[in-house]
Amino acid sequence: MFPVSMEDIHLAAERIRPYAHHTPIFTSQTLNKLAGASVFLKCENFQKVGAFKFRGACNAVFSLTDKEAQRGVATHSSGNHAAALALAADIRGIPAHIVMPENAPEVKKHAVQNYGGQITFCENSLTARESTLAKLVDKCGATIIHPYNDYRIITGQATATAELLQDVPMPEYLLAPVGGGGLLSGTALSAHYLSPKTKVIGVEPAGADDAYKSFKTGKLHPSVSPKTIADGLLTSLGEKTFTCIRNHVFDIVTVEEDEIRGAMHFVWERMKIIIEPSSAVPVAAVLYHKIPCKDKRVGVIISGGNVDLKNLPWHN
Amino acid sequence: MFPVSMEDIHLAAERIRPYAHHTPIFTSQTLNKLAGASVFLKCENFQKVGAFKFRGACNAVFSLTDKEAQRGVATHSSGNHAAALALAADIRGIPAHIVMPENAPEVKKHAVQNYGGQITFCENSLTARESTLAKLVDKCGATIIHPYNDYRIITGQATATAELLQDVPMPEYLLAPVGGGGLLSGTALSAHYLSPKTKVIGVEPAGADDAYKSFKTGKLHPSVSPKTIADGLLTSLGEKTFTCIRNHVFDIVTVEEDEIRGAMHFVWERMKIIIEPSSAVPVAAVLYHKIPCKDKRVGVIISGGNVDLKNLPWHN
Repeated sequence: MFPVSMEDIHLAAERIRPYAHHTPIFTSQTLNKLAGASVFLKCENFQKVGAFKFRGACNAVFSLTDKEAQRGVATHSSGNHAAALALAADIRGIPAHIVMPENAPEVKKHAVQNYGGQITFCENSLTARESTLAKLVDKCGATIIHPYNDYRIITGQATATAELLQDVPMPEYLLAPVGGGGLLSGTALSAHYLSPKTKVIGVEPAGADDAYKSFKTGKLHPSVSPKTIADGLLTSLGEKTFTCIRNHVFDIVTVEEDEIRGAMHFVWERMKIIIEPSSAVPVAAVLYHKIPCKDKRVGVIISGGNVDLKNLPWHN
Repeated sequence: MFPVSMEDIHLAAERIRPYAHHTPIFTSQTLNKLAGASVFLKCENFQKVGAFKFRGACNAVFSLTDKEAQRGVATHSSGNHAAALALAADIRGIPAHIVMPENAPEVKKHAVQNYGGQITFCENSLTARESTLAKLVDKCGATIIHPYNDYRIITGQATATAELLQDVPMPEYLLAPVGGGGLLSGTALSAHYLSPKTKVIGVEPAGADDAYKSFKTGKLHPSVSPKTIADGLLTSLGEKTFTCIRNHVFDIVTVEEDEIRGAMHFVWERMKIIIEPSSAVPVAAVLYHKIPCKDKRVGVIISGGNVDLKNLPWHN
């Protein structure tokens, strides 16, 4: 029923404390005025690796026994999870094997290599990634760490909300973006234990609304040809994250692309912090009144700040 | 000899406390590694109006007697000082008259109007600005608040360093950019009283090195055809700021345009905060080793974060 306990979250927080940042809360009077609410941004863009993903990766890596750890960890990913896993493994002094398509952007390859990750290139298809990862793990015995459909990951992500609730007790709403659902699951589990009256709401781009459909129909919809600038939210939910979300999330709402762009520009221009499009998704929900949060206190998880500074959504 | 006393700085801090943010200090392990020093960024990009200028403007506006205040304040400026003065006046509930060239960027006009400032347009020359301002003040009796050559302004800017020294006691170095010299003068005065062993260093773009030349020759050099992306640092020193800087600043160093661009990109990419080119100038000094600060503690004033997001220095 409850795959993750309060004690698990507490242990994860202790486990990652020496390595992860307790990230700050940012607020803006202008944002509050426009939203008609008191909005508290939990700035995981300031987390190590520039994203909340470090929490889950760090918890997973430091949960391994010494014997498991020796053989390293492995994943297929070209996003923030790959860099996060590489850094967490580097801190523990163990190998991280990252399977990545050959045509992944140079900047993503560099991020992984910077943190000492060992990249194995493959063709750009899910089948190629999975078979390459399976072969690799077969050979070296590394532990596969899935980017979100893993309770160690979900529990690590839950620590962001645990911290937020220390700094902003009992908000009426908590918002997080939904991609694979690891962050939203962790958010919902932390709120369930620490602030049970808080309504946790997932926010998704309308152009990648598989979690919205899954939540509304009670049946897991895979993400098919998603189209959004929020490139961290393209993936489908996993079985584990879908179960957490069905049981503990109050609602899922969607926002349009121009709202994502508008929210991102607002935060950059007025709050002077760099957030990635995926982080702008829940900000858009408050800025464009998708949630009945008038005069309420709303926590928003800012998932990360990794963007290509040469290619911003308001160019062209 | 000492035009600003410790007591003046203390009073200014008290005066602006209800309105200005105590801005945070940001650090980065990567920055420290590259600089070979412990670097502490005082983030005035998070200040009201997005710049330290609010401190000086707020101190000036709230230093006025009620009778003076009734008639309002006035300045000619199209930059951060104009917006800062408009907001400070708005908070006190008095008029702010801003003289601005007709061809000033729309975004700057909007910033002033947003804060309730009343714009008087003039032709785009210093003579036109000054005569328009003189006529205006003649008519309405407003108090002219110069952007930097004014002790109320200098004392207000000094409060940024007073805060920094609360959070980071006794750094070996303190760095600030130099344009008109208000920020650098305030930095030097605060350090003189609160941390006399700290060496205060001004950093200037090589393409706008009038303060450097003035400091090295002991003679006020006006800024002639400056060329730099650091658009906040184009102005010449004033008599008052030059005197402060001669008496209390340890050194002035210069940085090149590509170093300013590199430092700005580094802070955006790695620290996820938006700083304007002028703020990147002192960051460049530590990043590119212009200062003998190996293994030392270095405070850097990040002056502001107001940039045109559609026109960034790494485009093209």
